[in-house]
Amino acid sequence: MSILRIDGRACDELRPLKFDVDYLSHPLASVFISNGNTRVLTAVSFEDKVPSWMKNQKVSGGWVTCEYGMLPSATTERCRREAAAGKQGGRTVEIQRLIGRSLRMAVELEKLGERTFYLDCDVIDADGGTRCASITGSSLALAIGCKRLFPANENPFKELVAAISVGIINGTPMLDLCYAEDSSAEVDMNVVMTESGKLVEVQGTAEGAPFSRRELNDLIDLAEHGLKQIFVRQREILESI
Amino acid sequence: MSILRIDGRACDELRPLKFDVDYLSHPLASVFISNGNTRVLTAVSFEDKVPSWMKNQKVSGGWVTCEYGMLPSATTERCRREAAAGKQGGRTVEIQRLIGRSLRMAVELEKLGERTFYLDCDVIDADGGTRCASITGSSLALAIGCKRLFPANENPFKELVAAISVGIINGTPMLDLCYAEDSSAEVDMNVVMTESGKLVEVQGTAEGAPFSRRELNDLIDLAEHGLKQIFVRQREILESI
Amino acid sequence: MSILRIDGRACDELRPLKFDVDYLSHPLASVFISNGNTRVLTAVSFEDKVPSWMKNQKVSGGWVTCEYGMLPSATTERCRREAAAGKQGGRTVEIQRLIGRSLRMAVELEKLGERTFYLDCDVIDADGGTRCASITGSSLALAIGCKRLFPANENPFKELVAAISVGIINGTPMLDLCYAEDSSAEVDMNVVMTESGKLVEVQGTAEGAPFSRRELNDLIDLAEHGLKQIFVRQREILESI
Amino acid sequence: MSILRIDGRACDELRPLKFDVDYLSHPLASVFISNGNTRVLTAVSFEDKVPSWMKNQKVSGGWVTCEYGMLPSATTERCRREAAAGKQGGRTVEIQRLIGRSLRMAVELEKLGERTFYLDCDVIDADGGTRCASITGSSLALAIGCKRLFPANENPFKELVAAISVGIINGTPMLDLCYAEDSSAEVDMNVVMTESGKLVEVQGTAEGAPFSRRELNDLIDLAEHGLKQIFVRQREILESI
Amino acid sequence: MSILRIDGRACDELRPLKFDVDYLSHPLASVFISNGNTRVLTAVSFEDKVPSWMKNQKVSGGWVTCEYGMLPSATTERCRREAAAGKQGGRTVEIQRLIGRSLRMAVELEKLGERTFYLDCDVIDADGGTRCASITGSSLALAIGCKRLFPANENPFKELVAAISVGIINGTPMLDLCYAEDSSAEVDMNVVMTESGKLVEVQGTAEGAPFSRRELNDLIDLAEHGLKQIFVRQREILESI
Amino acid sequence: MSILRIDGRACDELRPLKFDVDYLSHPLASVFISNGNTRVLTAVSFEDKVPSWMKNQKVSGGWVTCEYGMLPSATTERCRREAAAGKQGGRTVEIQRLIGRSLRMAVELEKLGERTFYLDCDVIDADGGTRCASITGSSLALAIGCKRLFPANENPFKELVAAISVGIINGTPMLDLCYAEDSSAEVDMNVVMTESGKLVEVQGTAEGAPFSRRELNDLIDLAEHGLKQIFVRQREILESI
Repeated sequence: MSILRIDGRACDELRPLKFDVDYLSHPLASVFISNGNTRVLTAVSFEDKVPSWMKNQKVSGGWVTCEYGMLPSATTERCRREAAAGKQGGRTVEIQRLIGRSLRMAVELEKLGERTFYLDCDVIDADGGTRCASITGSSLALAIGCKRLFPANENPFKELVAAISVGIINGTPMLDLCYAEDSSAEVDMNVVMTESGKLVEVQGTAEGAPFSRRELNDLIDLAEHGLKQIFVRQREILESI
Repeated sequence: MSILRIDGRACDELRPLKFDVDYLSHPLASVFISNGNTRVLTAVSFEDKVPSWMKNQKVSGGWVTCEYGMLPSATTERCRREAAAGKQGGRTVEIQRLIGRSLRMAVELEKLGERTFYLDCDVIDADGGTRCASITGSSLALAIGCKRLFPANENPFKELVAAISVGIINGTPMLDLCYAEDSSAEVDMNVVMTESGKLVEVQGTAEGAPFSRRELNDLIDLAEHGLKQIFVRQREILESI
Repeated sequence: MSILRIDGRACDELRPLKFDVDYLSHPLASVFISNGNTRVLTAVSFEDKVPSWMKNQKVSGGWVTCEYGMLPSATTERCRREAAAGKQGGRTVEIQRLIGRSLRMAVELEKLGERTFYLDCDVIDADGGTRCASITGSSLALAIGCKRLFPANENPFKELVAAISVGIINGTPMLDLCYAEDSSAEVDMNVVMTESGKLVEVQGTAEGAPFSRRELNDLIDLAEHGLKQIFVRQREILESI
Repeated sequence: MSILRIDGRACDELRPLKFDVDYLSHPLASVFISNGNTRVLTAVSFEDKVPSWMKNQKVSGGWVTCEYGMLPSATTERCRREAAAGKQGGRTVEIQRLIGRSLRMAVELEKLGERTFYLDCDVIDADGGTRCASITGSSLALAIGCKRLFPANENPFKELVAAISVGIINGTPMLDLCYAEDSSAEVDMNVVMTESGKLVEVQGTAEGAPFSRRELNDLIDLAEHGLKQIFVRQREILESI
Repeated sequence: MSILRIDGRACDELRPLKFDVDYLSHPLASVFISNGNTRVLTAVSFEDKVPSWMKNQKVSGGWVTCEYGMLPSATTERCRREAAAGKQGGRTVEIQRLIGRSLRMAVELEKLGERTFYLDCDVIDADGGTRCASITGSSLALAIGCKRLFPANENPFKELVAAISVGIINGTPMLDLCYAEDSSAEVDMNVVMTESGKLVEVQGTAEGAPFSRRELNDLIDLAEHGLKQIFVRQREILESI
Repeated sequence: MSILRIDGRACDELRPLKFDVDYLSHPLASVFISNGNTRVLTAVSFEDKVPSWMKNQKVSGGWVTCEYGMLPSATTERCRREAAAGKQGGRTVEIQRLIGRSLRMAVELEKLGERTFYLDCDVIDADGGTRCASITGSSLALAIGCKRLFPANENPFKELVAAISVGIINGTPMLDLCYAEDSSAEVDMNVVMTESGKLVEVQGTAEGAPFSRRELNDLIDLAEHGLKQIFVRQREILESI
């Protein structure tokens, strides 16, 4: 493809990707992921109890949940601090539910023991794709955390997951949208996949005009193409721990 | 297909669908939709001002937003009243954002004038698929409301949208899941489409195990099959107003 | 009396009254009451625990509480959704306390067992008198629920209660005010009574000018006149269950 | 009557009543009312604007509103501080709405000018009847405040109001209940009256068993008897200002 | 010093100080402190449990905590009621944390038993120095409460504390600032001390311009001078109980 | 001094200090400060309006305010996310008020124009002294921001401020406490100073036992000794921008 993108990338090209492991002193594991100018600090902690609804329903095993946040200074215009506003916005709630669901697919909950794992995803710098970077980063952090916490033969971690955004801009499908692209996309899609190539979540949203089945397929193809490269990078780091 | 479902339907069969127009005395338009045992009261109201962010960003035209709620007695176990709890839950927030986005695709915002349209979707009785019934019902209500409010040649309503849930249960794709099916589905998908057959939202979620591209396609096929029948019903009613 | 009311009724005439039993699929009992154009969905559910203050004070038996709400589209001008606003308004709080107190007089709390009964009163369509319709409807629903839950000789339900609004408009006492009448009333009174003719709550409020003892008495007479007819209707249905 | 009450009073006897005018340095007027061991600090302030709903509805004149609170140490068992709990309880809301309604009957709103008057009623020490003491105290404070703020010929204050509690204990109607009496009353009633002897609010509540019309009448008689004495005391002080 | 202050005091002169013991009927002990026109009602209550964090950390003994509030009518301009606003303001939070910390220094927590002591400090009338009056008053109330609750040889109360404000106004250090002085001070300092002359808290804040070490020392000298007189007064009363 | 500290430092020795300028893409200026293992991201943004109280009081010029937060994974035990909890804790409120006050001393508010400057201080990793690091970092960020925004002759920035913690541990005064030292300190003090050596805030708190005037003086001496070194570092960087 010869269409030039805002930052000079090809349409099927990822932004530079970097994982900084154990960036933080205290949690079980942490991964500071940079995806272009988007930087998200993901961390895994746990406590030895499960949510009360699990107790009430007598579900055995543990739970994985996510909390997502954005520093007020992470965006072009300073965004309001949710702690000061006294509530999390709708976008935040939607995103942290997506991350939580996705990561629960990466582990066998019943092998976690009576524990709740917290995935904290805090956006330090935002340039599009923060929910996908959060999933990709916290998936690696959770894999590392499980490796540390459990003996190899009891490891509840099943499979790495990763996520990438794709979209259609001026009629052309593009991979890994930066903020400027995301804002002008006609269709916006987030694809969460497992390392073995299966789908965990597909969320496609028409922004300007509805889309066809064919466009849907092209976008998922493009996402798969990018996710394969991401899994190679995650795998490399996980093996080295 | 010869697999029998809980309620005796074929796998590609919708539940009985009923639209009760102008069920309410006061709003511009209302549709009380029954989809099997799921019943949702959808209503359209408007006020002559737009959200403050629109004013600040000097976007012209109007806005469409949705508020979704569930009566505490609509569910098997009484669910907590969100007004008494002092906040809307994450599921509610996620659903009303989805409905709002979907319905904004049905109209030309710039033709709405300086108005905010509220879609109130209140679940009276829940048996699965409440967000889809909300979209299907409020789409019809919004179409009717626009017909009443605007001269034909200035009608901002572009196209009907509708939504249906599909899922994979015991390896079999099924259409229009009831609650018992939804709870045991391996994959759960909501598809929002336009009357002309294009996609507005696709939200597929692996519940038990990740899914393949082929399964994704089968599910969307099934959804299309159901949605075509729904559009016939919506259209009939809209023409009769 | 020859004064004509807005809707053509005589001053001592009730609006058409209808009870739709078991309108809902899930709760122990539900009554959808229509009182003229006012429609309220009342439902009874219970859970096997009591409020913590009862435990602390070692009160034996159970508890009955009410939650009242209004659909945003139930009123002439769309009213704000309390769940979205993050709190119940003062009017809501006042009303649900009145309903709860009134219905606790209908049962023997100590015979309820360690249970909390929830009366959910949700206004679907409002045209005045919603608190009274809520009491009348939920009283029947609670009677039906108790009949279902307890053996006849242990039934904690003592006596039906019902409520009606009365008021003075242009100097004339009138029964069962609709919204337009309620808004212009000089005095507004809600009377809650037992089937045996005793008073449970009397709440009289001067809206325009204070009222005399004689007016108070006339209003209660009028309320009694209406309530007797309501008890006949409740009784009929209760016997038929 | 020869029945002896807890504190030795006759059944139709008020507790000692004291008004301490201008107890506070800052507000327009304040009255510290002692009714037996119940002590409530009532104060009147105003600001030069009206609530936004008045502006929207283009109602002319001003508004009177009440805020009621209780010091945590005012009760036998320390009660929770509502500011720390983050919300006003249902009882508080119900009481301050009653006080506000009652005092709005004491003035001509349209003569207040574009002002909101705040009646702050803070219970310093509680021994039953705090809402009645709040009305009686703030009525005097509002009368004094209006006298100070307006020229005599433009004074919007119409008439003093006062309130007293009455109840039935062991079958006997009693006036001005203290907390111990209030807790064991079968019927509990609050009567708000004007100096000219008309009713502003009547709120009678069955606590243990429903009550008859005759009991209702006896209670209002008793209340009138007490209120006449209170008006004499209010009047004396008001004249002396 | 010959500089005349607003109220005619010398620069090193306290305002009139008065302690009214057991002003309230219900709590374990209460002190109504008047410091010039500043009046604060301080009360001590307790309950037989400790905060959950103490239980979790297995800290033995009890806890002392403070809640501070201001009546809306205590200030020149009516201040917003925090219970109605739904949250305590930052100033309130800061002040009650200071009072709590200071009073915890007055007792041996491990001797309190499994109890939480509440210090309620409610400002009835404000004219500067409310946090200092709160500490001085509640220190005496806590001393009296402990004397009542514990046998002399198990009394957990170690030592009286008291607090005073000092500040620099037009370059001159002054003791015990009233509101008008406080508003125009260049430096504002609160000093909390023990009866034996040691420091518990020193909080000095530059308001207009930063201050020198020498000024800091002068201010603490002045505070010590005032606090010695206050301890004499507290001691007198405590001995008389 | 020959006493060895936990991390091998001398008693009057600072932890390694690092300033990373413009760590963030979007705000006017940002400084990522590392003070030993404590790392705080400070950022300066502004908007072209002032708080409503300034407008009401007709104060001219601008305002500087601070919001402080801590990532949940910044502490040894994961701390609760305040946005999810729905409110900022008391400690957070206290700290951000201190930072705001301190930084307002660094600028001439009336020269800021009708603008509000936000200092966002987000703790990424906590090991004691986060409020002091926040002040030191945001002071530099604000200085840089002003240099960028204003012409040199209209620069409202007056003077750098910086802060350091000091404390007494086992009777010995120590500089720049890490978390383990802070937890066991008998006295804990934060000193905020200007580059010219004057005091902005002094907050000394007895944790275990009250302290003497002499100890107070020793601690401020120690703080001054450390702050002088910090000002050299801030100045260097500011000159290089």
